[in-house]
Amino acid sequence: MTNGAQALMRTLVDAGVEVCFSNPGTSEMHFVAALDDEPRMRAVLALFEGVATGAADGYARMADKPAATLLHLGCGLGNGLANLHNARKGKVPVVNIVGDHATYHVKYDAQLQSDIETVARNVSPGFVRTAKSTETLCQDAAAAIAAARTAPGQVATLILPADVSWGEGGVPSAPLVPPTPEPADDATVEVIASAIRSGRKTALLMGGHALREPGMLAAAKLAAHNGVTLLAETFPTRMERGAGLPYIERLAYLAELATVQLTDIEHLILVDAKAPVSFFAYPGKQSYLVPDTCQVHTLAAPDQDITASLNKLNGVLGASQAEPRLQAAKRPDRPRGKLTAEKVCKAVGHLMPDNAIIVDEGITSSLMLSAMTAGAPRHDMITLTGGAIGQGLPNAVGAAVACPDRPVIALIGDGTAMYTIQALWTMAREQLNVTSIIFNNASYSVLNIELERVGAEDVGIKAKSQLDLRGPVLNFAEMAQGMGVHAVRVDTAEDMAKALEYARSMPGPHLIEAMIPESLSGVKRRILPWMLRSLPSLPLSVSRALKRKLAP
Amino acid sequence: MTNGAQALMRTLVDAGVEVCFSNPGTSEMHFVAALDDEPRMRAVLALFEGVATGAADGYARMADKPAATLLHLGCGLGNGLANLHNARKGKVPVVNIVGDHATYHVKYDAQLQSDIETVARNVSPGFVRTAKSTETLCQDAAAAIAAARTAPGQVATLILPADVSWGEGGVPSAPLVPPTPEPADDATVEVIASAIRSGRKTALLMGGHALREPGMLAAAKLAAHNGVTLLAETFPTRMERGAGLPYIERLAYLAELATVQLTDIEHLILVDAKAPVSFFAYPGKQSYLVPDTCQVHTLAAPDQDITASLNKLNGVLGASQAEPRLQAAKRPDRPRGKLTAEKVCKAVGHLMPDNAIIVDEGITSSLMLSAMTAGAPRHDMITLTGGAIGQGLPNAVGAAVACPDRPVIALIGDGTAMYTIQALWTMAREQLNVTSIIFNNASYSVLNIELERVGAEDVGIKAKSQLDLRGPVLNFAEMAQGMGVHAVRVDTAEDMAKALEYARSMPGPHLIEAMIPESLSGVKRRILPWMLRSLPSLPLSVSRALKRKLAP
Repeated sequence: MTNGAQALMRTLVDAGVEVCFSNPGTSEMHFVAALDDEPRMRAVLALFEGVATGAADGYARMADKPAATLLHLGCGLGNGLANLHNARKGKVPVVNIVGDHATYHVKYDAQLQSDIETVARNVSPGFVRTAKSTETLCQDAAAAIAAARTAPGQVATLILPADVSWGEGGVPSAPLVPPTPEPADDATVEVIASAIRSGRKTALLMGGHALREPGMLAAAKLAAHNGVTLLAETFPTRMERGAGLPYIERLAYLAELATVQLTDIEHLILVDAKAPVSFFAYPGKQSYLVPDTCQVHTLAAPDQDITASLNKLNGVLGASQAEPRLQAAKRPDRPRGKLTAEKVCKAVGHLMPDNAIIVDEGITSSLMLSAMTAGAPRHDMITLTGGAIGQGLPNAVGAAVACPDRPVIALIGDGTAMYTIQALWTMAREQLNVTSIIFNNASYSVLNIELERVGAEDVGIKAKSQLDLRGPVLNFAEMAQGMGVHAVRVDTAEDMAKALEYARSMPGPHLIEAMIPESLSGVKRRILPWMLRSLPSLPLSVSRALKRKLAP
Repeated sequence: MTNGAQALMRTLVDAGVEVCFSNPGTSEMHFVAALDDEPRMRAVLALFEGVATGAADGYARMADKPAATLLHLGCGLGNGLANLHNARKGKVPVVNIVGDHATYHVKYDAQLQSDIETVARNVSPGFVRTAKSTETLCQDAAAAIAAARTAPGQVATLILPADVSWGEGGVPSAPLVPPTPEPADDATVEVIASAIRSGRKTALLMGGHALREPGMLAAAKLAAHNGVTLLAETFPTRMERGAGLPYIERLAYLAELATVQLTDIEHLILVDAKAPVSFFAYPGKQSYLVPDTCQVHTLAAPDQDITASLNKLNGVLGASQAEPRLQAAKRPDRPRGKLTAEKVCKAVGHLMPDNAIIVDEGITSSLMLSAMTAGAPRHDMITLTGGAIGQGLPNAVGAAVACPDRPVIALIGDGTAMYTIQALWTMAREQLNVTSIIFNNASYSVLNIELERVGAEDVGIKAKSQLDLRGPVLNFAEMAQGMGVHAVRVDTAEDMAKALEYARSMPGPHLIEAMIPESLSGVKRRILPWMLRSLPSLPLSVSRALKRKLAP
């Protein structure tokens, strides 16, 4: 006989869901027991649900197919919610299996009873289903997987009552085929082609799947042939980069700067991206960043065939055979002297190996990362899509599981690292080839900037203490060692580079704690050069305009 | 002018909400800035929201009034959900302040946008409100505080849009007085008195506020005068214990054992407790643990005046002047030899200081704790009310903030400790007098038991690996040192006792990592003596019956 859990396991792997990032409890024990019946399923244990969900997110970004999570009732889902939010915002496919009490036990309101569906809707509005019987469980599972895989990808949640899991009579379901995405229709392409032909200043804002090689090459042909500007969304789910690919500048996080990037653009063409808005609202500032005089067009929405749409546009405009401008190979010099955040990024750019996966959750400290790695060997970059910090280390776990032959380098802020620090243990247990670089500036540095940006400038000691990670300063090297990850603390650029070289030579988990000064207090005094540096491709005229705008 | 945040701060402290456990982001910056305008508000920073919410829970259990949490949008609330669940199940008052985007920013669906109210309903079904304007914000806040404080206590969530917070024209609101709880009505008391007078075997199942001194003394009078059995719910929110108070046995976690405790009881009288059900459902076993032949009565529901109800019952039965039987002072001997979980509990019982607060999240490892501390000096014990692990360390933070003159001892399992390990940093930063004892048996030990209990007995290596915390074994002492907490790892009973003595002599945060064997695999072989030991007060006849029932 086959129980529900066993049939579910078979249904998952038959549909290509071959990894389960798990943090199980009693109600999931039959699913756990079924792992050994299915050699194709790999189970990766996390010590906290946020690690499991963030790993599933990172895995799917790199594998282009979903992993499963295994979570324990509403509280387990709650603990995993923030990274599922990031997956939702990044349109990443994830299949949550959330264990629940046996159906007949719910009415007793036992300790762990809570409304799981309600919580799940926050992150998987498109698919939340509670399995009703062992017989129909796998039909629900197949539907969940298909929902997760339907373009552009989403989080799907299947709630699995314990008795549905342990009941006999499970029937595996064959995979359902998700609908094939369609390219942009002719009329849309024609309108956009006309806008481009008009000769007015036009930019493509690219996001999602447009930031993979085929989409980027197609867009770069258009740029070469028709002079349109290429911009990438601020926080890409996954962006292919490096020497030999087109260089596409990302829209800045700071609305003040993004506005400058969008200056004078009269046609903004969205390709798997949304019209830019500021991350937060600020008193007296606009949330919507598109200039009033700019017309917004959508070439392809996220659920469409992005590359085919771009190719169709190129066909209409005669750009199909154009020669795209590609990034030349170019690495920064080896950094020297006292360590700064910029020198950490420089060391990464100088030393990063071929075919790396870069996970960027360095917040203020990794502002120079994009510039420093632009001409590095080809790599993928994963960023914080939903703004819920604590994504980076778990994403690195998942990326390394998806791509065991590729080195993963995760750059993480100290504040953000603490949300899901438990990820280090999973890196050690699975011997994942991840080098985690923690920027230790003993501060929620971005909040020191935000405090001034929201107009709360004259703050006292209690307020400052809420942004400050001193007293005591965290020692990430010690914490990592406590979780079985080789770790070193560095405060010179020389030692930083040496530590990276050592990590490169010894595949497996490493942590480098980069001790850097917290130098971002006083926005008006210091933010300008830093903002300017962060976008080295800005034309000089814009830099000057910005300088005037922001000068004290 | 007063902005919304400033008026809110005043409204909170005027209503006695004087501590805010915070993990803020940009949308909370005006609230943070307002901290310095209000000297009566203490802000305690947490590095993860689950620490903030668990600390608010622990604080309210000891302070008997709510603290505020400060959380960053839906994802921050999600990260705090598990410990808010524990607070909800424990009927603990908490006032969540959840920052949100400015009202006009919501429509842009920026990165951190999500449906906060939906998530909040999972843990604060009785009060979720989004403030609509700066002018009315404090009326909402006063209502939230009153809701949290309405007997028996609940989690209330106030969602605070950034523009409502920063807007000028805030008007502080005076505290609202929550309704006064009423005692049981005469008819109910009379029916229960008749049941007791019938001479049939009767037990009081006590929970919530019944487990404080006044309720316990009243119940103990009834026990002395009328021979009723006193039982406490399995996971009390807060239980007063120790020499000079009545000893009240807790209902066992294992349904198999709880059933034995309830054998032959013909009248079960609920006093701020619910009729016992098993924690999880198990194939072929009953969820409802009350014998079919037992009649259940409710003397007082959680929202009633518990002590007054008990006193009223005593009055009707003539028990008001009875002499309650009180626990004699008695400590276990100092343990010797190789360390075991039992010896850790013994060392705590041998050495715990007067007036301690014991936080028990030791799961399988602290089974002997209640027995070993029964005759220790008076103390309070806090337990895992909602089953969402990761409660203990944050609870200890809150308890220490609420009671700075009392030593806190937290006994925590290794698996559970990892969910909210970031709490250690807050202990260090606030120099809280907390001694955290981590039982390191490198296992989700309880799941090894549960695996067999749910009937999933023949499991393979992949399943076992999901319950195993080896490869690498965590080093909690190193992690604690990395967060600034003095820590030591011990593996003998002598060193355990010495470490406790050292911690007692040096108030402030300490961590003792107790290396113990994982000895609970094989339920049938080993569970029996362990279950019997865990309830030393069981009559011999019951022990024998149990032995027969469970023998292989």
